[in-house]
Amino acid sequence: DVTEKKARPWIWREKLQARWRYVQALLCYLGPPSHLFWNILPMSAWVLAVTLGVIFFEKYTGRVLDPGNVSYRAYRSVQFVVSLLLSMRINRGVTRWWDARNGFRGAGSAVAALCYQCPVWGVDPAIHACIRKWGIAWHFALWAELNGDKRLDPRAEALFDEEGLRDYYSYSKGRHLCANMLRRLIQEAVEVHTGGMRQEMFTELQSSLQRGFDSMSQCNRISQQALPEALTMLSSGFLSIWLLVMPLGLWESSAGPVGAFVMMLVAVLMLACDELATQLENPRAWPEGLRWKLLPVEVTLQRT
Amino acid sequence: DVTEKKARPWIWREKLQARWRYVQALLCYLGPPSHLFWNILPMSAWVLAVTLGVIFFEKYTGRVLDPGNVSYRAYRSVQFVVSLLLSMRINRGVTRWWDARNGFRGAGSAVAALCYQCPVWGVDPAIHACIRKWGIAWHFALWAELNGDKRLDPRAEALFDEEGLRDYYSYSKGRHLCANMLRRLIQEAVEVHTGGMRQEMFTELQSSLQRGFDSMSQCNRISQQALPEALTMLSSGFLSIWLLVMPLGLWESSAGPVGAFVMMLVAVLMLACDELATQLENPRAWPEGLRWKLLPVEVTLQRT
Amino acid sequence: DVTEKKARPWIWREKLQARWRYVQALLCYLGPPSHLFWNILPMSAWVLAVTLGVIFFEKYTGRVLDPGNVSYRAYRSVQFVVSLLLSMRINRGVTRWWDARNGFRGAGSAVAALCYQCPVWGVDPAIHACIRKWGIAWHFALWAELNGDKRLDPRAEALFDEEGLRDYYSYSKGRHLCANMLRRLIQEAVEVHTGGMRQEMFTELQSSLQRGFDSMSQCNRISQQALPEALTMLSSGFLSIWLLVMPLGLWESSAGPVGAFVMMLVAVLMLACDELATQLENPRAWPEGLRWKLLPVEVTLQRT
Amino acid sequence: DVTEKKARPWIWREKLQARWRYVQALLCYLGPPSHLFWNILPMSAWVLAVTLGVIFFEKYTGRVLDPGNVSYRAYRSVQFVVSLLLSMRINRGVTRWWDARNGFRGAGSAVAALCYQCPVWGVDPAIHACIRKWGIAWHFALWAELNGDKRLDPRAEALFDEEGLRDYYSYSKGRHLCANMLRRLIQEAVEVHTGGMRQEMFTELQSSLQRGFDSMSQCNRISQQALPEALTMLSSGFLSIWLLVMPLGLWESSAGPVGAFVMMLVAVLMLACDELATQLENPRAWPEGLRWKLLPVEVTLQRT
Amino acid sequence: DVTEKKARPWIWREKLQARWRYVQALLCYLGPPSHLFWNILPMSAWVLAVTLGVIFFEKYTGRVLDPGNVSYRAYRSVQFVVSLLLSMRINRGVTRWWDARNGFRGAGSAVAALCYQCPVWGVDPAIHACIRKWGIAWHFALWAELNGDKRLDPRAEALFDEEGLRDYYSYSKGRHLCANMLRRLIQEAVEVHTGGMRQEMFTELQSSLQRGFDSMSQCNRISQQALPEALTMLSSGFLSIWLLVMPLGLWESSAGPVGAFVMMLVAVLMLACDELATQLENPRAWPEGLRWKLLPVEVTLQRT
Repeated sequence: DVTEKKARPWIWREKLQARWRYVQALLCYLGPPSHLFWNILPMSAWVLAVTLGVIFFEKYTGRVLDPGNVSYRAYRSVQFVVSLLLSMRINRGVTRWWDARNGFRGAGSAVAALCYQCPVWGVDPAIHACIRKWGIAWHFALWAELNGDKRLDPRAEALFDEEGLRDYYSYSKGRHLCANMLRRLIQEAVEVHTGGMRQEMFTELQSSLQRGFDSMSQCNRISQQALPEALTMLSSGFLSIWLLVMPLGLWESSAGPVGAFVMMLVAVLMLACDELATQLENPRAWPEGLRWKLLPVEVTLQRT
Repeated sequence: DVTEKKARPWIWREKLQARWRYVQALLCYLGPPSHLFWNILPMSAWVLAVTLGVIFFEKYTGRVLDPGNVSYRAYRSVQFVVSLLLSMRINRGVTRWWDARNGFRGAGSAVAALCYQCPVWGVDPAIHACIRKWGIAWHFALWAELNGDKRLDPRAEALFDEEGLRDYYSYSKGRHLCANMLRRLIQEAVEVHTGGMRQEMFTELQSSLQRGFDSMSQCNRISQQALPEALTMLSSGFLSIWLLVMPLGLWESSAGPVGAFVMMLVAVLMLACDELATQLENPRAWPEGLRWKLLPVEVTLQRT
Repeated sequence: DVTEKKARPWIWREKLQARWRYVQALLCYLGPPSHLFWNILPMSAWVLAVTLGVIFFEKYTGRVLDPGNVSYRAYRSVQFVVSLLLSMRINRGVTRWWDARNGFRGAGSAVAALCYQCPVWGVDPAIHACIRKWGIAWHFALWAELNGDKRLDPRAEALFDEEGLRDYYSYSKGRHLCANMLRRLIQEAVEVHTGGMRQEMFTELQSSLQRGFDSMSQCNRISQQALPEALTMLSSGFLSIWLLVMPLGLWESSAGPVGAFVMMLVAVLMLACDELATQLENPRAWPEGLRWKLLPVEVTLQRT
Repeated sequence: DVTEKKARPWIWREKLQARWRYVQALLCYLGPPSHLFWNILPMSAWVLAVTLGVIFFEKYTGRVLDPGNVSYRAYRSVQFVVSLLLSMRINRGVTRWWDARNGFRGAGSAVAALCYQCPVWGVDPAIHACIRKWGIAWHFALWAELNGDKRLDPRAEALFDEEGLRDYYSYSKGRHLCANMLRRLIQEAVEVHTGGMRQEMFTELQSSLQRGFDSMSQCNRISQQALPEALTMLSSGFLSIWLLVMPLGLWESSAGPVGAFVMMLVAVLMLACDELATQLENPRAWPEGLRWKLLPVEVTLQRT
Repeated sequence: DVTEKKARPWIWREKLQARWRYVQALLCYLGPPSHLFWNILPMSAWVLAVTLGVIFFEKYTGRVLDPGNVSYRAYRSVQFVVSLLLSMRINRGVTRWWDARNGFRGAGSAVAALCYQCPVWGVDPAIHACIRKWGIAWHFALWAELNGDKRLDPRAEALFDEEGLRDYYSYSKGRHLCANMLRRLIQEAVEVHTGGMRQEMFTELQSSLQRGFDSMSQCNRISQQALPEALTMLSSGFLSIWLLVMPLGLWESSAGPVGAFVMMLVAVLMLACDELATQLENPRAWPEGLRWKLLPVEVTLQRT
């Protein structure tokens, strides 16, 4: 997976900005965070096989397949397009990743803000407790939806009694249930509010809720909608064809092991970009380990 | 067509991120989702014909058409421009597609939100039913407009009685009629509301309506306005000329079948990008099968 | 001109997505919508003249001007920059065009929305009529300003009586007059409103007016402000120099008619991009025929 | 300087879209608006000197400095990066320029809108006069700040009496003083307002003020903050090194005057892009002549 | 570090726009602001070692490692991708830097605006003093968080008495404490306000607070979240591999010192771009010297 939890200072210092990051970078093809090499192995092997096939054919038959290097000349004309496609996909992947992360984090902040505002406005303690409970459940509901889990995290389930939980699971979209409950609670809180400034209070609480809702939508929209499949397919297909036909005309007369080594290297470097773009695109593939780390709103609240 | 319905987990796993996606990607030129090859066949055939013409002319006359490869040298100078134009068109196409999809989906969410809010605010049940009816019709009206259908979907028609339907069709823009009805219903709901907080209620309902309206406008604007025709024409024309004159100077002396094969491959790879950009640009060409899948607001509402 | 009216389905089908669009695309250099070739003729002729000059000089003196092809090698180093500049200009041109179109259309929608809202809120019919009149005039005033017309369109003039018209023309900025009148009418409509919800009514009407105002500003800002002149000049100048010096080193020893033909083709392809960027940049050059088609708000209103 | 005042129709017709703009474009290297050539003369001369040095060294010693053209091969690998850096800087420069222009213009429009709204809402004439005075002064204060002037323009100074002016200059940030005065005046105007709709009136006036404030901040932020110095330095440094080492391997054996001429041309074309980016980046270098043309709000107001 | 404090006029004149900036630009590799060369030394040395190894191997064994220059041909195919990746990272770095700077500055402006508004609305002086104190502390709290400091700056600590300070440090997130205190103070200020227009007053003060909050979030989000680690690693790893294998096929037969010198230069130029992107990405690495210069709100306030 391609994401990383919060960039703490030591991460910056020891990983991202270290002088020796180039050594680590070489390892990124083999190891974490992306294990790129293992994912692109089948296709790379295929390219290598074709390359070796061409080399042996040329060596044992003595015939040069493309003596005028027409294919090399022609493929140079299309290399920009494939490069621009790869770059575009990576770029869009980074934007998606950034937006999804911020959506997830923003949802948590909005819930926290809602809980902070309750005592400021003197919200009735019973209603405040409910807002807190449903707010926390809301964030966990988003998390479950993103991870494709059927059930909430145990920490969220602990908020409900047995009946409440059965009730919760009777709805197919827990996230919307939480939002509706919060909407209702806010309206109730304002209605029983006896101090002045009811409209201001409503506007404040409601706008926090709306921020949370919008953040969740942003996050969800990205996780449910891939980029157009045809773009992904075209980009991968273009690259594959380009790599498979390249050995034909890469050398003038004949190439020894250097040719095979170089061709393999090109394949790995290019396919790794394609693999990175694919990993970045899917928020559900970020999981193992580090991604979507949910810091329960409770913890945030306890800290202040 | 180039779009894809919601990216369910299995789609990510088995199509978009599968290790064997490169094989599928090769098929994308021939099969779904884009059938690129069949669409670009006439132009590719033309390029192939010119290439074969040049090859046979050079073989049988013994004359080399462009011995100094001046044309190859010159075309290399313009290949960036054609690559950047193609990449720009695809990029804009993806953005259009993303915005149109989100506009369509956002319209549905806004209607659902409106229906959720009604019971929270204690809207009169009769008015609530009307809001629901016109909200659902609104989404279907957008769908009909996008698909260029004269009539609403039967599911939407079932909402109206006969007279109501005749009334509906007497307006040329059903979408605006629905919006106006909703506007009026919201105002009415607020006016008959006896509890306090009328202004908050109005702001809430009205803002949901406005979100729906804006989402529909965004969606509609894209479906009614192509990119500047001159850009599309220039990009396709540039590419065609480039491909048609390329065989002239691609090889030093003469080329056999390798030349024709390579030239054909270049043509297919480049024209497929142009075709993809064209498909992405037109929301009305997304239809067959998967695109603009309308999940009736009713269903969304029943789920929670 | 480079724009196109609304993309009706048949336009998508028969022009933008037709299989034979490549043939049409070749024609775009000669015919509508852009007549690119005729506009770049002087500069192309100049490039051709220089090319022929070099060819004849080399043929009759027997001297090769740049035997080591130093200039070809050097110019290849700068071709990216010129390509990126052209691409950037076209990209910005498309964005400008899109924003201006949407601004123009958005202004019309805002006026229509204002007129729709009047009966919903029970605006006094006399005031409603005035709002309608000034709203329609507002859109026409923008149109006149964009086209550089001194007088309004006859359809707009018909809204006023003689004195009103004389009054209107006594102001130098009709657009601002209309906006001020609408602002005043809205305030008046609210003040004489006897039903409740005056604040909501004001917010609604005012926000439609503000949307119209913002759309017009967006549209106007683009039509009054070109991109930095130095950028346009630099891009065209760079391209001209590049094209004029290119023949010097394009061929190794000497080139016959192929050289001249190829050089001319390169010039046309590249200059056409520059011409397209220039056409897209200027909203006032879109006119003849199709652009800024104003659908009177009246017509929109009559339809529903 | 690189900016241009409003693009009046004749400017479009005779400068930006003229058929002979290519001739003018050639002049842009020498003359207005950018005088690019004179600004890059020192560095170009340096490149020329190195080129001539290499040529004479190779001619008189008979030794070829880089016989395998290793440097030419290597530099071709880095030319994309330098091209992309230049293009990125120009692109960001254009965006900065556009935002700063619109910020400046938007500030004027906001003040004008504020003045228009006063009579609509029946603001007390004395307060209206004050709003007008401080609004005009506000725009001039921004202008003075952008130009780095210590004193206001005489047209703005004429608004104040002697004591008022002394008072004004006793504050170090005139711009903030004006904003505060306007904020206070609006609040006062609303408080003494006897008609109804005080809240609407306040919202209206206040939102115009806020727009002005935001536009000024946008404008000011750009004029006070250059792009990261390291980016500018890296881009210029990269380009310089690239140009200085290029003559080493540009020709195979030896080059005569053609080599020097071509090298000089490349240097001028590339450095001109760097110079343009640098000019666009600095709003304070736009001045002489055309930029930041302030049309006093008074004049705008008198016209309608 | 790569940032620069406010661009005062003399900085524009003497550094960023000076004619001799090219000389300074050459120094940027060695000296401030980025000390690029020293940071990339290990990797550059490694590239140099490999290059020298290849040269000596070829000289003393007489064998040419890659006689057909297959590797040179192949690497030219991937150079676009590495260039586009570098350019993308720098571009995103500049955007992050700009957003973080504006977030930091915007937070200060929002606090200043809040303090300006208090006297305009006649806020109770005691509450005003508290707002001022907590507002100043808020900005310093952000600063401490960005710098990773455990304690506030002494200037901020001086605002509190001993007990208040102990209290402050008992919270783990000082920034949120300040925001909560301000929220409470604003609500209190409005509640004790006896003049009219309480709602307007609340909206005004609250919107300033919200702007500050949003600016801080923007700033904080960037400083806590690096770009996807996999992107950074891939980009650095790709570049390293590309540089390490390049010497293999850069020259046809054998290269002397020119080869080593050129290869070293290419390595430095390319790695410097990678290093710049890395520096720009990390707001915590901007520190030494110039970055995040906090101008206490107090000083801003005293000036007017």
